[in-house]
Amino acid sequence: MLKVVVIGSGNVTQHLISVFKESETVQLVQVYARNPENLYHIIDKEKITDSFENITDADIYIISVTDDAIAQVSSSLPFTNRLVVHTSGSVALEQLNNKNRRGVFYPLQTFSKNKSVNFNTVPLCLESEFEKDYSILEQLANSISHSVYNISSQQRKALHVAAVFVSNFVNHMYVQGKNVCEEHNIPFDILKPLILETADKVQQMDPIAAQTGPAVRNDRQTIEKHIDFINNDIQKEIYKLITQSIQDVKKL
Amino acid sequence: MLKVVVIGSGNVTQHLISVFKESETVQLVQVYARNPENLYHIIDKEKITDSFENITDADIYIISVTDDAIAQVSSSLPFTNRLVVHTSGSVALEQLNNKNRRGVFYPLQTFSKNKSVNFNTVPLCLESEFEKDYSILEQLANSISHSVYNISSQQRKALHVAAVFVSNFVNHMYVQGKNVCEEHNIPFDILKPLILETADKVQQMDPIAAQTGPAVRNDRQTIEKHIDFINNDIQKEIYKLITQSIQDVKKL
Repeated sequence: MLKVVVIGSGNVTQHLISVFKESETVQLVQVYARNPENLYHIIDKEKITDSFENITDADIYIISVTDDAIAQVSSSLPFTNRLVVHTSGSVALEQLNNKNRRGVFYPLQTFSKNKSVNFNTVPLCLESEFEKDYSILEQLANSISHSVYNISSQQRKALHVAAVFVSNFVNHMYVQGKNVCEEHNIPFDILKPLILETADKVQQMDPIAAQTGPAVRNDRQTIEKHIDFINNDIQKEIYKLITQSIQDVKKL
Repeated sequence: MLKVVVIGSGNVTQHLISVFKESETVQLVQVYARNPENLYHIIDKEKITDSFENITDADIYIISVTDDAIAQVSSSLPFTNRLVVHTSGSVALEQLNNKNRRGVFYPLQTFSKNKSVNFNTVPLCLESEFEKDYSILEQLANSISHSVYNISSQQRKALHVAAVFVSNFVNHMYVQGKNVCEEHNIPFDILKPLILETADKVQQMDPIAAQTGPAVRNDRQTIEKHIDFINNDIQKEIYKLITQSIQDVKKL
């Protein structure tokens, strides 16, 4: 059994706690939280501490706090030479205090409070300062997901940018679509099957091959009609810029 | 039984033929195609004609050709006062020749050649020139989908713009994400669960509530790091503009 301590109380922490509780390879020995009451609904009170001095022995310490707090929390740990990892997509391994053996355990998924996630399919991006620690991280990762990747800090930076495009920016396109619907008394529900199918398509097809619509067809008439139709300035700008970008890709 | 003639041979036509063949309410009596050989794999040769003069009697004629050809095809039909509909998101009902009773039967989905679609969940957007024809269209629509909407030409225009945002532009975000991955030797596969979950989330949540990432958190440090990291000009522009737009929405 791998003994794990989790540090944090946010969305990612709560998803990790849930999945570790169910794992047969992992023993979740303790959780550190500044505000233990945030976690009372998913873990026994006795397993939570709010004092760094009381943190117990474990094989891995997972710091799952906001990006800005990672360096500080890693410095506050009252021990040395243990395996300490963070879960962030955008923080370098070197941000962890070097008194411990450092690593990264980054689950590449979007986590929301009231929506459960099947961890089995969540890609886990691993990195370790020392080679021997990598196999410990790998053992932990394999116990909760069948999608495990060795990703360097530089690659993780790229991956985070890519994730912003395919998740945050995509979600904003949904917001824009919903805005257009609302302006014309159309229920957003009507777009939901299209949203799912668009995501489903690229599970099998290359997104370049999956591209459809007036931009890739260079259907100038429809593009002009759409630009005229949109009466929100930034929405119009987005329409023009992405249409341009789709046509640039096509030309390559 | 509703007797239907389909006119066309493209993606949408082929999906319609497949679903009508399986329906117990619809009798697909004939298909008109300029190039019948495109359809030999899904329908008997004897049911296909390439001559307008040979088009047979039916309750509904569905013109499913490219947008530019709709007006011309509807003028070429050698009969009058029958129910003739098109399947386009961006063509007004009035583009159909007025010698027949006009309507629209617009399936709001993205159709690709080698990917089957469950028609049952495809929203069908109906419009008719005459009220009595609406119930015929509705009967046809209900026989293949449980998601049927009455949508005016003006609303359909809006819907098409919304669909460009939530499908075509979303797909382009996938292209950008894939480009970033490839530049850093990361397999695109790693992003696929995130892509699915992002689409799945807004099936239940409002997209504004579902928004995550550095833009909505106003995490200036990460935003600046990402902008520095991106070395493709139009990608950088997209990053800046959508970040701006996410922050504008937040302020409302």
